[in-house]
Parts: sequence; structure tokens; C-alpha cells
Amino acid sequence: MEYEASLNKYKIVIAYDGTNYGGWQVQKNAVSIQSLIERSLSRILRAKTSLCGSGRTDAGVHSLGQTAHFVTEASIPPSRILFSLNGLLPPDIRILSIERVPLEFHARYSATSKVYHYHLHLDSVPDPFKHLYSYHVPHPVDIELLKQIVKFFIGTHDFSSFANEGHQGSAARNAVRTIDRIDIVEEPGGVRLEFEGNGFLYKMVRNIVGTLLDVCAGKIPKEAIPAIFAAKDRRKAGRAAPPHGLYLMEVKYEEKEEK
Amino acid sequence: MEYEASLNKYKIVIAYDGTNYGGWQVQKNAVSIQSLIERSLSRILRAKTSLCGSGRTDAGVHSLGQTAHFVTEASIPPSRILFSLNGLLPPDIRILSIERVPLEFHARYSATSKVYHYHLHLDSVPDPFKHLYSYHVPHPVDIELLKQIVKFFIGTHDFSSFANEGHQGSAARNAVRTIDRIDIVEEPGGVRLEFEGNGFLYKMVRNIVGTLLDVCAGKIPKEAIPAIFAAKDRRKAGRAAPPHGLYLMEVKYEEKEEK
Repeated sequence: MEYEASLNKYKIVIAYDGTNYGGWQVQKNAVSIQSLIERSLSRILRAKTSLCGSGRTDAGVHSLGQTAHFVTEASIPPSRILFSLNGLLPPDIRILSIERVPLEFHARYSATSKVYHYHLHLDSVPDPFKHLYSYHVPHPVDIELLKQIVKFFIGTHDFSSFANEGHQGSAARNAVRTIDRIDIVEEPGGVRLEFEGNGFLYKMVRNIVGTLLDVCAGKIPKEAIPAIFAAKDRRKAGRAAPPHGLYLMEVKYEEKEEK
Repeated sequence: MEYEASLNKYKIVIAYDGTNYGGWQVQKNAVSIQSLIERSLSRILRAKTSLCGSGRTDAGVHSLGQTAHFVTEASIPPSRILFSLNGLLPPDIRILSIERVPLEFHARYSATSKVYHYHLHLDSVPDPFKHLYSYHVPHPVDIELLKQIVKFFIGTHDFSSFANEGHQGSAARNAVRTIDRIDIVEEPGGVRLEFEGNGFLYKMVRNIVGTLLDVCAGKIPKEAIPAIFAAKDRRKAGRAAPPHGLYLMEVKYEEKEEK
């Protein structure tokens, strides 16, 4: 594990309410969360500083555990960087923690798994406090059916049919990913789908949730799911569930032996 | 209990996220919740219909149980009015229930008590999802001290020192009110103050909470509270706590013998 006296690398963990932003990464005509943090960080460290996130989140998607790293020559105590960042950032973006990491750490490439939650709101009269934070499904959802059909998605599969083309065009790349678990957890007013896996393609969680809901709504028979996987064609799967039900909860890294 | 064949009176219960509104009642340069419901109601009932609420809530204050009544000659089933209203209203305002009531029912004057909750957020790094829904207190709050000093406020008192002048000018009116309970309930990330009483003056809950917090912050000695009551002067009490921590939870009415 390499540290260099003149160069410090830090990992930060970020929570945000994605409602008012154009997503994590710079978008046209919308403020990005990354750019707001970069601007504040550059002011604190008195040098243009760029932030490398674990991955993008779309406009409206929330986070309780996005991670990012940055490198600086400044030697400001991390607790002071944390305090100053939270002082400059708007209240719907909060830095939860900061820690010094070895120079070979990379927020994206060192990640071993990610946890996403998707919240479905199922009350007949939707809670006005949830309309930006949970997806109110306009049709009945059979939770037992949901528990059956998520099994099609657990394990190692080619998820091409559940991936949109990325910003840089990604249709040709390897779409094999492993989902370790999809837990269906009942909660007040609805249900939460917990996804954990080694990597997720662009819009993959939202496309899986949308397909699950299309099965619940009777639009797609559950027996058709293996054929949808086999087609490797996004158009064969269901709609994408909307962004505001989705939360990036945690980005996991291998336990470091040294710190 | 009087009903009249040609005239129907209905009571509705309304939940709203107050963030985007200028309060319950019509304000200059801001959309009011009352006016949005009146507009939708008039469309459904095909006649200009006015709504009488149990009382005002200020801009930014939330509700899970505001009540209001309206009178109509239309004979549309209440379940259809409920469904149509929720279809026309924005998702941050929801009608929770509707019921037919006797003509002598009055949303404001028939109310026997009201329940308000005020949420304090006490985490050191504030949760970005709570910044519009709970007040993040910028100093330590001693919960045991809070439990002691709320006792000064329970019971029947002249609350002049804790009331702002109302919209119609209310300094001269009777300011004696009874608070039946103020419960301090710890919850994840903070504490909730539950107020129940037979009536609350303009900004009274927020002024009490602000004063409690000024005692916690050491700005007002707790021994000074009886003198603040005795002064009957708003300027002697503490600041008003901000609106976004406040929720109108329930408006209670006497049990009706007939329905």
C-alpha cells in the first residue's frame, strides 16, 4: 500500500437527495452533484480538484452511500475538509465521512460490490411525503409473485436485455454481471427491493424493477423472462421504473490490511 | 343532528408536504393549499365551492391531518369526490378521507383539540433527506432538560408571550389556552415533541419550541419561564422554531352520536 508524502488520496462517502439535481455527473442544463462537490473542494484546497465517483446516478436517483476519491497536495486534516465541505454544500448533499486511502485506491475500479434499494409505495392513497422518494405503483403488486420472479435475476447472467446504452455507447461491451441477492423487504406503506451485486449496467436496476412490475401487472408472463435474457435485446424487457424510487446505499471495497 | 335533502356538508382530512406552498390560506405571491383544493373541488362539483379549514398552517408547515368542510348541492358519492380530487391535486397534497357530516358541523368551531408534532434532528451530520422535514438544531439538546422544562407549558395558561399577532390582529383577544400534553419521544436521528391542546394561538407551537431550545442553548435560564408567561409580551420569549419541523397531525371532534 503506497502513500506518498506530498500527495494525499481521500475517499469520501456522500448522501444526497437527488430531486433537485441533474444526476451525479455533469449534464447539460442541470447542476450535477459531482460538480458542486468539486467546486467546494477546490475552494477548500485552493487548487482545482477533480472527484472520481464510484459510478453515475441519474437525475432524481438518491444516495445514502455514494463514494468518490480525490487527490490533493494540501495537508489539511480530513476532519476539517469534511466540516468545510458540509458548510459549503447545500443541505440536500452531505458528506458522511472522509478517510485517507492508499494511492492505488480507485472509487470505481476498487469497488467489489454495490447495494441499491428500490422503494415501491403501495398505499391506495399515496403518502404526499413519499412522492419524490418512493415509486407509487398504479396497479396491485403481488409480493409473493415478486419473491418468486426475482429468482430469475439472482446469479451470473448476461444482462444485455436490462441495460440501456451508456453515455459513451456501451452496447458492445461485456454485459455479464452477478447479482448476489435481491431481497424483498416489506416496510410501512410498501416494499423495498434490495439489490447487491458486483456491478450494475446503465439503468439495470430500474429496468429489472420495471420488468418485475410488468409481470405483476400481467403485461409480461413470468415464463417469458428466460427468453428475454436470451434475446440480449433491451426492447424485449419491460419499461424502466422511475428514478425517484432508487437509492445507491453502499459501495463495498475489499478490506484493507493496512491503513 | 340536521341534514337537509338539498344540501350536503362534507368533512375532508388532508395531508400535505408544505414545502412548495405559501401555507394553507391564500397569501400574496404564493400558491395556497386551500385555494388549490377549492379550485379542484369547484371543477368536480361544477359550482364555485369554498373550503373552511380547521385553521391556518404557515408556509413550510406540513400536515398529516388537516381538516376542512364544504357545502354542496351536488349529490356525487363521496368516494367519487375523493378519487377525483386526488386525481386533480398535485402529488404533495392528498385527501385522506371524506365523510358526510351534519350541517351544524364546523371544521374550526366544532374542533375540541388539535395534535401537533415538532421534529428536531440532532445528528451531527444532518441527514440530507430531512432538511425540509425536521429542524436540525445547531447546538446540543439535553433531552432530560427538555422533559423538565416542558412541564412549565402543560396545563391552562395565558400564552400571550408565545403568540404572534395574527393576520387579523389578535393581540387583544383572550390568550388563555390549555395544553393537555407535551410528550418528548426519541426517534431515529432526533426527538419529536408531541403537543395536544384545546387550541393554539398563531405561531404558538413554534414559539414554545424556540423558547425550549433557547433554554437548552443556555440563552434563557429555565427559572425565567414563569416570568416570561407573566410578562404577556412576545418579546420576552425565545425565537420561533422554523416551520419545516412542524406537522399538524390531527384535529379532534366530539364523538358524534348519530352519523
